[in-house]
Amino acid sequence: MAFRARHLLGIEHLSPEDIRTVLDLADRYVDLNRRTVKRTDALEGMTQINMFFENSTRTQSSFELAGKRLGADVMNMSMQTSSVKKGETLIDTALTLNAMHPDLLVVRHGASGAVDLLAQKVNCAVVNAGDGKHEHPTQALLDALTIRRAKGRIQRLTVAICGDVAHSRVARSNLLLLGKMENRVRLIGPPTLMPSGFDQIGAEVYQDMREGLRDADVVMMLRLQRERMDGGFIPSEREYFHRYGLDAEKLSFAKEDAIVMHPGPMNRGVEIDGTIADDIHRSVIQEQVEMGVAVRMAVMDLLAQNLRAERGRAALSEAVDV
Amino acid sequence: MAFRARHLLGIEHLSPEDIRTVLDLADRYVDLNRRTVKRTDALEGMTQINMFFENSTRTQSSFELAGKRLGADVMNMSMQTSSVKKGETLIDTALTLNAMHPDLLVVRHGASGAVDLLAQKVNCAVVNAGDGKHEHPTQALLDALTIRRAKGRIQRLTVAICGDVAHSRVARSNLLLLGKMENRVRLIGPPTLMPSGFDQIGAEVYQDMREGLRDADVVMMLRLQRERMDGGFIPSEREYFHRYGLDAEKLSFAKEDAIVMHPGPMNRGVEIDGTIADDIHRSVIQEQVEMGVAVRMAVMDLLAQNLRAERGRAALSEAVDV
Amino acid sequence: MAFRARHLLGIEHLSPEDIRTVLDLADRYVDLNRRTVKRTDALEGMTQINMFFENSTRTQSSFELAGKRLGADVMNMSMQTSSVKKGETLIDTALTLNAMHPDLLVVRHGASGAVDLLAQKVNCAVVNAGDGKHEHPTQALLDALTIRRAKGRIQRLTVAICGDVAHSRVARSNLLLLGKMENRVRLIGPPTLMPSGFDQIGAEVYQDMREGLRDADVVMMLRLQRERMDGGFIPSEREYFHRYGLDAEKLSFAKEDAIVMHPGPMNRGVEIDGTIADDIHRSVIQEQVEMGVAVRMAVMDLLAQNLRAERGRAALSEAVDV
Repeated sequence: MAFRARHLLGIEHLSPEDIRTVLDLADRYVDLNRRTVKRTDALEGMTQINMFFENSTRTQSSFELAGKRLGADVMNMSMQTSSVKKGETLIDTALTLNAMHPDLLVVRHGASGAVDLLAQKVNCAVVNAGDGKHEHPTQALLDALTIRRAKGRIQRLTVAICGDVAHSRVARSNLLLLGKMENRVRLIGPPTLMPSGFDQIGAEVYQDMREGLRDADVVMMLRLQRERMDGGFIPSEREYFHRYGLDAEKLSFAKEDAIVMHPGPMNRGVEIDGTIADDIHRSVIQEQVEMGVAVRMAVMDLLAQNLRAERGRAALSEAVDV
Repeated sequence: MAFRARHLLGIEHLSPEDIRTVLDLADRYVDLNRRTVKRTDALEGMTQINMFFENSTRTQSSFELAGKRLGADVMNMSMQTSSVKKGETLIDTALTLNAMHPDLLVVRHGASGAVDLLAQKVNCAVVNAGDGKHEHPTQALLDALTIRRAKGRIQRLTVAICGDVAHSRVARSNLLLLGKMENRVRLIGPPTLMPSGFDQIGAEVYQDMREGLRDADVVMMLRLQRERMDGGFIPSEREYFHRYGLDAEKLSFAKEDAIVMHPGPMNRGVEIDGTIADDIHRSVIQEQVEMGVAVRMAVMDLLAQNLRAERGRAALSEAVDV
Repeated sequence: MAFRARHLLGIEHLSPEDIRTVLDLADRYVDLNRRTVKRTDALEGMTQINMFFENSTRTQSSFELAGKRLGADVMNMSMQTSSVKKGETLIDTALTLNAMHPDLLVVRHGASGAVDLLAQKVNCAVVNAGDGKHEHPTQALLDALTIRRAKGRIQRLTVAICGDVAHSRVARSNLLLLGKMENRVRLIGPPTLMPSGFDQIGAEVYQDMREGLRDADVVMMLRLQRERMDGGFIPSEREYFHRYGLDAEKLSFAKEDAIVMHPGPMNRGVEIDGTIADDIHRSVIQEQVEMGVAVRMAVMDLLAQNLRAERGRAALSEAVDV
């Protein structure tokens, strides 16, 4: 078994074996009805703090549910209305929390790199639940699990990531994961929403949906992140849908059994046609949410195992020192 | 035992026997000090999500406490600050939640009918915690339990519902319940706050408090819902209290042993005189809150039993198919 | 063992023996790594409601964690967004909550005396988590525990409380506690932030930091409470730091082994120099947070014991009456 890390800060730091370890364990947490199995001894006696500097009901709930299913005491901290407003620095907030000795800290923050910085200051395991435009590793892992369950593998697939790539940590984490697992990744979107440099890390870049979707196994739509577009080009929704929204006609260029994904929340009629989103033969959007709970259970279970092992070694070394 | 429903969406769908089943079970959850009894096996291993699109500290707390006393894992989602803001449709929010496989979903929403719509899209049991001007069934059930405990019966009573009937789902659910149990219901209020059509379903309508309260067994005051009056007539508080506020003089027209109720939060000096609200010989307002926890425990216990039975049948039928 | 009270409303009502009882028990809740020990039978079956009319992520989290470590069902109520807005009085809110029969009510409120008032209306144990400029007793107790662990005693020390004394319930509770335990207390701050009358209760008042810090064992910095200064004098941050901010030069006037404290959240560069705050040989700011959880566990454990004893006596007396 791999995954010996202290934290989950990004896909960047994971090996292909680490990724397989998470997906295999997550799979075991899913029953035949795709419900997650309750197993309260995994995080028994442990405290999980969800520290969301950006609001996200869906991601926070998924982590909260995962923690409770594993037996943790879960505390939610809405950091928007907190001491941050009173002028406290991120580091002081982290140190204060650390002094409460949580075992797991799940953090979402608006600034890229903020979660890494915070992880350096605390003694517990940190899970990045999304930081700026940087990474959102559990999203990429749940997407990978969904793909693997639908396609039977997470290698040698052609995956098209479509839309607002520039503002998307989801795209970034997925690109890293899919690359590590030796898939062919295509990025499709208007030039204004496409960051430069991605072609250098092996992704093919397209401006035309039909061209980019040709023979794809997986079509991964992104949310148009209007809230992160500061000052730059903001396309009209109608124009955007016409050129980049996924509809039956554009989807017909992908493989016949291609699956359709979206990290949610969806803008129906902007990135994706409602009919496609609801088509149970193509869309795996609901299963992504289901796998989200399972993947977060697996990640936190593995981190807790590492934490217990580390504490065991520390106790042993103290005993020897005496 | 009755109450075989999947959801509790409104009093409208309940039979008198259903209502008695809920009240009898709720009664068993109340001890001699009117505290609710803890019984953690009822919802053991189940997940309850409270999804409040409208804020209500008191109702949400009552449901949260009820769930925890029955052993559920309870998650609160404040939907005002959530993905709703990001343009997600109610149905997509529901489908996302559903994919997390909760067992019980407690929903409050500002639009009449929203909870019914949502219930059609999910696999779990749904409890309506108030939808627009439509229904608030657990409020009517807790009112019925409070009346039954005070009066010894919930039949053949004269109940006066007073005030802002037009904007009140509490009034509507109570009217339905009291009618089903064969009580005589009177609605008292200014014509501008009185919807038409209620006289057709058996309620007597009064504009004069003294006339309407005459010989009433139960006086049920409603909160003046200024927040739901859009553009229409808004009475001055002073004028309103003078004509429709419950004080000792007006109350003297009711039976000598009439009880006084209010769903809270109260506007003292607007709908009700503070002295009456605090009179422990007449007011059962605190007991309403106490019965609220018990009634919600009973409702969720019954729904969980039905859910377990349904899942048992599904598992059996799958086994037979194999 | 002392501490027979029903509530913890302020340090004012505690005897030196009460204080020692809390500190001794809190010490037993701290392990060798300064983590708090989990002991779920202490509040088993009990319900703790955190009712914060003023926002405080750090204090609320500390109480929530303490309750969960003792096995309580913990409910958070954010009262800013609640029925208070709907015009309900504090007393009605209290009575409503009381009717839900919590066992422990942890209350923070912006008005001095509000928590005392509320405690008179409810049947459960009430803990004051800060009321206006009045008291914040658990802060003073955690400060005392931190001092006792660092200095080996909580008597006969010279403690300098520095800064915005006028707006600080932390200062007030600490002054009361330190006085009861026979310490020498000095208050240092600009005249505009120094209330009158404190010299009468034994505290020495200084305007000059160097003079006031001379030979101090403990240097307790206060947060500049800009949010509580209505209309009066607001110093510039730069000027304030120059005269009253703790830096190495000013600290050199205190004893060589003096410890530095701050209740948080800190305004670095306003009340305190960042280097001092982070100096692990002088600053015990992180340990204050750690002791916060332990002290709150001890307080709630003791109150729960008293509550159980009281209920036992009530049950016995009812049995005898029959």
